[in-house]
Amino acid sequence: MTIYSVHFTPGDIAVTVPSGSTLSEAARLAGFDLNQPCGGQGRCGRCAVIVDDARSAVRRRSTIRLDPEDVAAGYALACQTVIEGDAWVTVPPQEAIERRLTTQKTAAKVEVPFDYDSRRQQPIQRYFLRLDPPDLADQTDDWARVTRALAALGVPRPQAALDVLRCMPDVLRGGNCPSPEDSPESGFWDEGSAPWEVTAVVALDSWDRPDGPPQLLALLPGDRTDRNFGAAVDIGTTTVSVWLVDLESGEVVAQAADYNGQIARGEDVISRIIYAKRDERLTEMQGLVVGTINRLLEAACRQVGAGTDEIFKLAVAGNTTMIHLLLAVPPESIRLAPYIPVMNHVPTLTAGELGLAAHPQAVVDCLPGVASYVGADISAGVLSTRMDEAAELTLFIDVGTNGETVLGNADWLVTCACSAGPAFEGAGVECGMRATAGAIEEVWINNETLDPAYRVIGRGTEKPKGICGSGLLSLLAEMFVTGVVDRAGNLRVGASPRIREGEHGPEYVIAWGNETAHGRDIALTKVDIDNLMRAKAAIYAGFTVMAQSIGVDLADVSQMLIGGSFGQYINVEKAVQIGLLPDLPAPPGSASPWDRFRFLGNTAIRGAYMALLRRDVRAHLSAVAGMMTYLELSADNTFYDAFTSALFLPHTDMGQFPSVAAVFEKAR
Amino acid sequence: MTIYSVHFTPGDIAVTVPSGSTLSEAARLAGFDLNQPCGGQGRCGRCAVIVDDARSAVRRRSTIRLDPEDVAAGYALACQTVIEGDAWVTVPPQEAIERRLTTQKTAAKVEVPFDYDSRRQQPIQRYFLRLDPPDLADQTDDWARVTRALAALGVPRPQAALDVLRCMPDVLRGGNCPSPEDSPESGFWDEGSAPWEVTAVVALDSWDRPDGPPQLLALLPGDRTDRNFGAAVDIGTTTVSVWLVDLESGEVVAQAADYNGQIARGEDVISRIIYAKRDERLTEMQGLVVGTINRLLEAACRQVGAGTDEIFKLAVAGNTTMIHLLLAVPPESIRLAPYIPVMNHVPTLTAGELGLAAHPQAVVDCLPGVASYVGADISAGVLSTRMDEAAELTLFIDVGTNGETVLGNADWLVTCACSAGPAFEGAGVECGMRATAGAIEEVWINNETLDPAYRVIGRGTEKPKGICGSGLLSLLAEMFVTGVVDRAGNLRVGASPRIREGEHGPEYVIAWGNETAHGRDIALTKVDIDNLMRAKAAIYAGFTVMAQSIGVDLADVSQMLIGGSFGQYINVEKAVQIGLLPDLPAPPGSASPWDRFRFLGNTAIRGAYMALLRRDVRAHLSAVAGMMTYLELSADNTFYDAFTSALFLPHTDMGQFPSVAAVFEKAR
Repeated sequence: MTIYSVHFTPGDIAVTVPSGSTLSEAARLAGFDLNQPCGGQGRCGRCAVIVDDARSAVRRRSTIRLDPEDVAAGYALACQTVIEGDAWVTVPPQEAIERRLTTQKTAAKVEVPFDYDSRRQQPIQRYFLRLDPPDLADQTDDWARVTRALAALGVPRPQAALDVLRCMPDVLRGGNCPSPEDSPESGFWDEGSAPWEVTAVVALDSWDRPDGPPQLLALLPGDRTDRNFGAAVDIGTTTVSVWLVDLESGEVVAQAADYNGQIARGEDVISRIIYAKRDERLTEMQGLVVGTINRLLEAACRQVGAGTDEIFKLAVAGNTTMIHLLLAVPPESIRLAPYIPVMNHVPTLTAGELGLAAHPQAVVDCLPGVASYVGADISAGVLSTRMDEAAELTLFIDVGTNGETVLGNADWLVTCACSAGPAFEGAGVECGMRATAGAIEEVWINNETLDPAYRVIGRGTEKPKGICGSGLLSLLAEMFVTGVVDRAGNLRVGASPRIREGEHGPEYVIAWGNETAHGRDIALTKVDIDNLMRAKAAIYAGFTVMAQSIGVDLADVSQMLIGGSFGQYINVEKAVQIGLLPDLPAPPGSASPWDRFRFLGNTAIRGAYMALLRRDVRAHLSAVAGMMTYLELSADNTFYDAFTSALFLPHTDMGQFPSVAAVFEKAR
Repeated sequence: MTIYSVHFTPGDIAVTVPSGSTLSEAARLAGFDLNQPCGGQGRCGRCAVIVDDARSAVRRRSTIRLDPEDVAAGYALACQTVIEGDAWVTVPPQEAIERRLTTQKTAAKVEVPFDYDSRRQQPIQRYFLRLDPPDLADQTDDWARVTRALAALGVPRPQAALDVLRCMPDVLRGGNCPSPEDSPESGFWDEGSAPWEVTAVVALDSWDRPDGPPQLLALLPGDRTDRNFGAAVDIGTTTVSVWLVDLESGEVVAQAADYNGQIARGEDVISRIIYAKRDERLTEMQGLVVGTINRLLEAACRQVGAGTDEIFKLAVAGNTTMIHLLLAVPPESIRLAPYIPVMNHVPTLTAGELGLAAHPQAVVDCLPGVASYVGADISAGVLSTRMDEAAELTLFIDVGTNGETVLGNADWLVTCACSAGPAFEGAGVECGMRATAGAIEEVWINNETLDPAYRVIGRGTEKPKGICGSGLLSLLAEMFVTGVVDRAGNLRVGASPRIREGEHGPEYVIAWGNETAHGRDIALTKVDIDNLMRAKAAIYAGFTVMAQSIGVDLADVSQMLIGGSFGQYINVEKAVQIGLLPDLPAPPGSASPWDRFRFLGNTAIRGAYMALLRRDVRAHLSAVAGMMTYLELSADNTFYDAFTSALFLPHTDMGQFPSVAAVFEKAR
């Protein structure tokens, strides 16, 4: 056995350990009390240290909790890193680790995903016009005067809505229209302006009017060419997300998300369709989702000091039912065989028609869907993954209230859908919540004591309020691996004081009332577990049945892309452990089985954002939606059988999950 | 002296009279009591008889009250027809004369004014679609299914408004949308219909979208290709007129007219603009005119048993202020120098946006105007006169609340406007009323007794309620010729019991209370006379100043066309007597000075009707509006001086009215 020395900073402490020791053992010798809530299993990432790789010899057994950039920067999980020579290690302050993990996970900065030249690619343009004032020798009418000035800038004769004409005489003569009192949310009234100097906001074209004519959306007093906002919106059955976008730079300047206000009227699309059957309820459902979107638009605008009436374009993704409800178009035929949407391609509308909190003339582009159960959220998701341009076979799974799957490549795309329910979005679960401050987003359970450790989203001081989707997934996996539940999801009541008979049946307590923000215990019940199991079983059954039915072996899929509003927080190992994702060998040329998977977060809003920016990308999106072939899973019993088999942890057929079987055995 | 025999039917009575006798003298000998309210002056047309011209020798001294067709049919005015040989004469029953005159004057049948092939020329088309019902093998969405069927009929991919999409699923599946309770005025709900059999109502193009794309205006249950209605609307400052049109045949199937509901807020455009200055009043003014139009549309639809929602297109003429108020676009800049309209060319709108009683998606085409004071009513009027295609010089005068004049030919058109006030439309005059049943439409005053005779619009039994525009003009001329008023319009109080000091100054009683429908005297006051004089003076000054300013002698004008909602009832002689029209010699090649004049009635609605039918005519209308040059009369004092000079009967300068001077002398 060889002895190596390990040098620690801060404190300049050196210890000697035998080869094969872990960095966490060395750190303990050096007097550092590393945080190890998962019990040194490499699952929590809290024992991260920084190794000076240039002069150290260590082997990282697992880097699950680290990004490739982290590893490149020297980060290593102390509990998973084996000493194979002398080593130089920095122990960062615990707050630094917390902050890095947290910041990264909440409002990650969105990079503009492609070259973007707003003048060339963005249909919404602003033009500052300095008009010749009229006189008796030039009695040209206001509207012709404006179109004449636009023509001089190369803008063909536009059309204009009545409201724009109604404001025109006042704005041209130095007034404001509508008056500031009418528009409390307006961002336009802070400056006076000279008469006959105005900014024309023009939509040069739209997807359903690619050859124009342009539309004059507004005349604003003075020179307002400095600001041009748009918004990407994703209407999930459970979660609604909004990105406010600077259309000049292409940057996402603010983000906001919340539960869809329709949840109280039904958790899934079917129950909402049934609820909306009566006319006044259809209007009610529209009002609820519009209310949610408007609160988010207002919140996003507040973040950057903009008025909502500065938004002149919205690109909206959402499943087909959500789009119907947004438009108050009766969705009934979606629910009944043969499952026909009223429309997959929606004409461009205005924010005013829908009551959206944007400029009333703002162009609302509801993105194209494929079928009743594969909507614009999925076509936008595919667009954002670029799988339609890939040579290799790709599987894209969108984990949401509906679980949609798309399989294919640049040559073909097949898609199907199943109803997963809202459990992974923290809804329909007693202690569930969205991934915001106070949500438990990851849980580790000690093998011996069955006591949990957890991480809460926030600045490090928040007490937990509930558990978000990634926390639920993490919790279920830990409960399974540590034997808190058996493979059928039954709780081992009595094995710990935390596993008890609660008011609504057996439950596991993650946090006692004295630890929580509201003073009540946070527990996961058997009912919650069943909801989570049904959700993961539906998604697993969906993509496996589709792959089978078109004769594709999942092992031949080069990349599996996972989207969903919770998708960016979950980790592959745990998702495989509960049987949400398949347990596959490492792909050819890779050492890690996890290399096959990529978590993409909310792909729908990312696709909407891309379509919002560039007219060519928007046109491409229509082509993508057109090339997707929809597979109806309800046609026979195959899906139901697969779903039933998947209602175990990880699956009835443990042979499909060899790596999980191994972990499971080891934990026992 | 030669003696001739005159044979009368009925009764087969023959009398002998010397040559040079009139037919009225012969009739009296034969025992016929011909009606002669004008005292045998050839002005009332009530003594009309039918001469067998083939075997008779008579000379018609005057045929003013007869149309050329009447003369061709043998009609002659007994008091104006001289016996020059034997004659065979039929005396028609008095009722026949009354009915002929009446029918001719109220809802005269409108001929389709040109070749009309609705399939080729009308943008609004209906298509019956028998769709393939969807099944699991064809899950095409509803909207794509409809566009696919339209494409098979050669209709390019249309656009559709949100409301059309909202109704689509119900209508396709055999339902009605909106439900019958929502649409009491609907004409669609009388039949059941099979699912997947629908009628698509499509606007293939519009003036501002000549290259499409088409717009799907509605999907109706079943086959509704048998009916296709449109409406031509003329919004006068005082009078609103509506023609309901069968777009298949091109025929006008119903007509209706009424006072503009805005009258109570101001009699002329200037006072209405001032009234509408506050936002809520602008909306009120819009509501008032929309209310008037809607009542007329409903009345017209009732006449033919149609629902207002069967109207899918409206072509709207009106002066520039009326169009602004219809749209609730602030008209303030029209009133203030340099007199700029917000728009002369209005984008196509929908009936729903304006609240018009038609299908909510009906296309509303507000026709193009020229300037603040020469609106779409005048460009439509020019279109209907076809003066823009004439080789010879034409003067077109529109007599309404505004007096607009257009002079020119196929090469050039110059136009101007003056404010005449509403007197000739029966408004702003105490006993005034519209030309409907109960209105006195013509008056004759006996030279000796100064007692009037009058004709009332109706079936011959109506008692008078008031006096319409043509009656007022006729009355003023008779009062002048018989000396009831002097040249300054002052009443010769005391010359007859009918000329008295009334409550509001001097007045002339046309009908005593015991003759009238309401039991009150009908009288014309000095104030009314002044209003009428101002109206005629403004119009006369307008066209004479314009002719002078561009160096045209009115005697060189080949035809003078007079339009206006009262225009069709007035006669040239009386219009010249009061100095409304110029007193010109007979044109070259003609025996009668009256051959220069043609009364055309409401030219604005006729032009709107033409533009409603044919897309090429609509395009031509834009070209006509574009070729008209507006002359601003307010630029100097010339107009005001001319107006003041014209405030006499017929004019300060009697030398301009030689034929009137002769009549005047004779009457004295």
